[in-house]
Amino acid sequence: MSQWPDRRLLDLFGLQQPILQAPMAGSSGVDLAVAVSRGGGLGALPCALLRPDDVQRQVAEYRQAAPGPLNLNFFCHQQSPPDEAAQAMWLRRLSPYYRELGLDPSAAPTGAGRAPFDADYCAVVEAVRPEVVSFHFGLPDLALLDRVKATGARVISSATTVAEAVWLADHGCDAVIAMGLEAGGHRGSFLTDNMSAQPGLMALLPQVVDAVNLPIIAAGGIADGRGLAAAFALGAAGVQVGTAYLKSPQSLVTDAHRQALAQASDDGTALTNLFTGRPARGIINRLMAEIGPLSPDAPAFPHAAAALGPLRSASPTPQDFTPLWSGQAAALAQPMDAEALTRRLAADGLAVLAKLSGTLAPA
Amino acid sequence: MSQWPDRRLLDLFGLQQPILQAPMAGSSGVDLAVAVSRGGGLGALPCALLRPDDVQRQVAEYRQAAPGPLNLNFFCHQQSPPDEAAQAMWLRRLSPYYRELGLDPSAAPTGAGRAPFDADYCAVVEAVRPEVVSFHFGLPDLALLDRVKATGARVISSATTVAEAVWLADHGCDAVIAMGLEAGGHRGSFLTDNMSAQPGLMALLPQVVDAVNLPIIAAGGIADGRGLAAAFALGAAGVQVGTAYLKSPQSLVTDAHRQALAQASDDGTALTNLFTGRPARGIINRLMAEIGPLSPDAPAFPHAAAALGPLRSASPTPQDFTPLWSGQAAALAQPMDAEALTRRLAADGLAVLAKLSGTLAPA
Repeated sequence: MSQWPDRRLLDLFGLQQPILQAPMAGSSGVDLAVAVSRGGGLGALPCALLRPDDVQRQVAEYRQAAPGPLNLNFFCHQQSPPDEAAQAMWLRRLSPYYRELGLDPSAAPTGAGRAPFDADYCAVVEAVRPEVVSFHFGLPDLALLDRVKATGARVISSATTVAEAVWLADHGCDAVIAMGLEAGGHRGSFLTDNMSAQPGLMALLPQVVDAVNLPIIAAGGIADGRGLAAAFALGAAGVQVGTAYLKSPQSLVTDAHRQALAQASDDGTALTNLFTGRPARGIINRLMAEIGPLSPDAPAFPHAAAALGPLRSASPTPQDFTPLWSGQAAALAQPMDAEALTRRLAADGLAVLAKLSGTLAPA
Repeated sequence: MSQWPDRRLLDLFGLQQPILQAPMAGSSGVDLAVAVSRGGGLGALPCALLRPDDVQRQVAEYRQAAPGPLNLNFFCHQQSPPDEAAQAMWLRRLSPYYRELGLDPSAAPTGAGRAPFDADYCAVVEAVRPEVVSFHFGLPDLALLDRVKATGARVISSATTVAEAVWLADHGCDAVIAMGLEAGGHRGSFLTDNMSAQPGLMALLPQVVDAVNLPIIAAGGIADGRGLAAAFALGAAGVQVGTAYLKSPQSLVTDAHRQALAQASDDGTALTNLFTGRPARGIINRLMAEIGPLSPDAPAFPHAAAALGPLRSASPTPQDFTPLWSGQAAALAQPMDAEALTRRLAADGLAVLAKLSGTLAPA
């Protein structure tokens, strides 16, 4: 029987397979998390766009249907107040699109939309006791983190550099996600905003493994069994997979997003701050091509998002103004049921690992 | 006995180990190539900065000392003529540095320095008959390429995207280098100049393997046995290693460059066009931090280079104006003799591969 060469993460989280579903706020919900759990991986519920009572309801649904542990995911950015000057600059930048669609920029909405982890969310964690709590953009304040850890939850977060991984280990994480440049969605960066220096996973992962004495979860560009095997070769104890699950029927992506993923190429994405104010990887669309992908005119996270809503609603091609989150390996993933995909990833990963041993290979 | 799980590249090139030394113009010469060959890898002589008769002399030295095959490397960019307006713009951009060092910008030199593959170089190839000829920035014109192939040389080149890999396969390459974003020095890009969309190796490599029915050589961020094993897991038949060899005593880097490599971090490099006009990855230094890393003011390749010479000569800290080429995994490499490093990489790679087989792993 084949087995994983590193069992630390399996034991830490109580998993059958060392596969974490990436929590993807807005693109994944209970159905995807349950399917991944049924496949033996770690299902995750992204909470950044949910109110605390919605979180509680989704957890109840998950617990009814999922056989395995649960990862509740929160953003923990410092919420910046709305900045009128920045908003005005942003609306000036977007005004050609408002005019094109016959909209009035002065009526553009504001608002944050994405809430950071706070006492209300923490009370839900204490009530529902997820096995794993993951954070994005660092970790919350020590008082909140202590309350989370007191529930017995394992705490993880994403590092985009070695320095961030060391910081997370020093601040109490039980495992660290090494997030390569390839990954889709928001960068987890919290100690750097220099996107031109972000390392690819091939370089980042072994350097994080050397620097941090914790199980490391590899993320970014992993969408088939070869990626799983490579991650273990580089020293990871498990992987986090996002984009491949977006192609499953259980994801919540729009038809346009699903179609863009089906046609994705290796060099069709870029990091952009246009959709929220923070850099995130998505398929290059009209807005990114015309005023981005990274623009100093986008206001601070998450205040860029609200003004795009009217463009999305009014446009005959809303995908021009919608983030089409994707990593760089969308083309590797087969569109299939998320439970079956989880089993396939695990089986293929083990098969690649077995074949790599020279003693087993054909001469 | 352990063995490599894929022997295609070993057989194609007649190698003991599936390790190619990256040809690094200006930073490597005969000594490094010979040492790599003695270690069982493929030694390479970069020719872009050499006159044809210098190439011939270096090949003779290599043949006397190296036990294995030889890779002769050439640039094959379209040589653009000097552009006075672009040069004037560039000197305006550099003028604060000229003034700071008491230099006269109007006396700045011009000149190309890096010559593309042409009939004279081709005559040398026909005379010295290297086993492998590698190109950077695509492939030369068909007439020249046909002459190279008629010598019996295996032809390879670098792809930074799947589209480039397919193009190289369609145009007669015998193997293709998949060059991840992590790699140091000049990007091999020739069908794209969109640096914000370049894929990391974890995503690029398996997509190239799927698209091209040739042995694929993985490059970028590979500096120890884990990287070798990961490359084979992703489907590569061999690896190309550059930065790790820069740390060997056989490289030609300056003391300042060597010191920068010794202190390198995972997130201390960026792609810059300031030093030659084409994007290349180097350790972030003063010039990159202040006017780059990518600037529209740098003239077309290779015309950016000449004007930096006087700054380098006059500055008490010439590394401020010198490219410190490096990939993102410099910190993984031990500074050691290049022959020993080649043997170590191979042995460590095989050891990682053997350990990855679940049937051999401790429970």
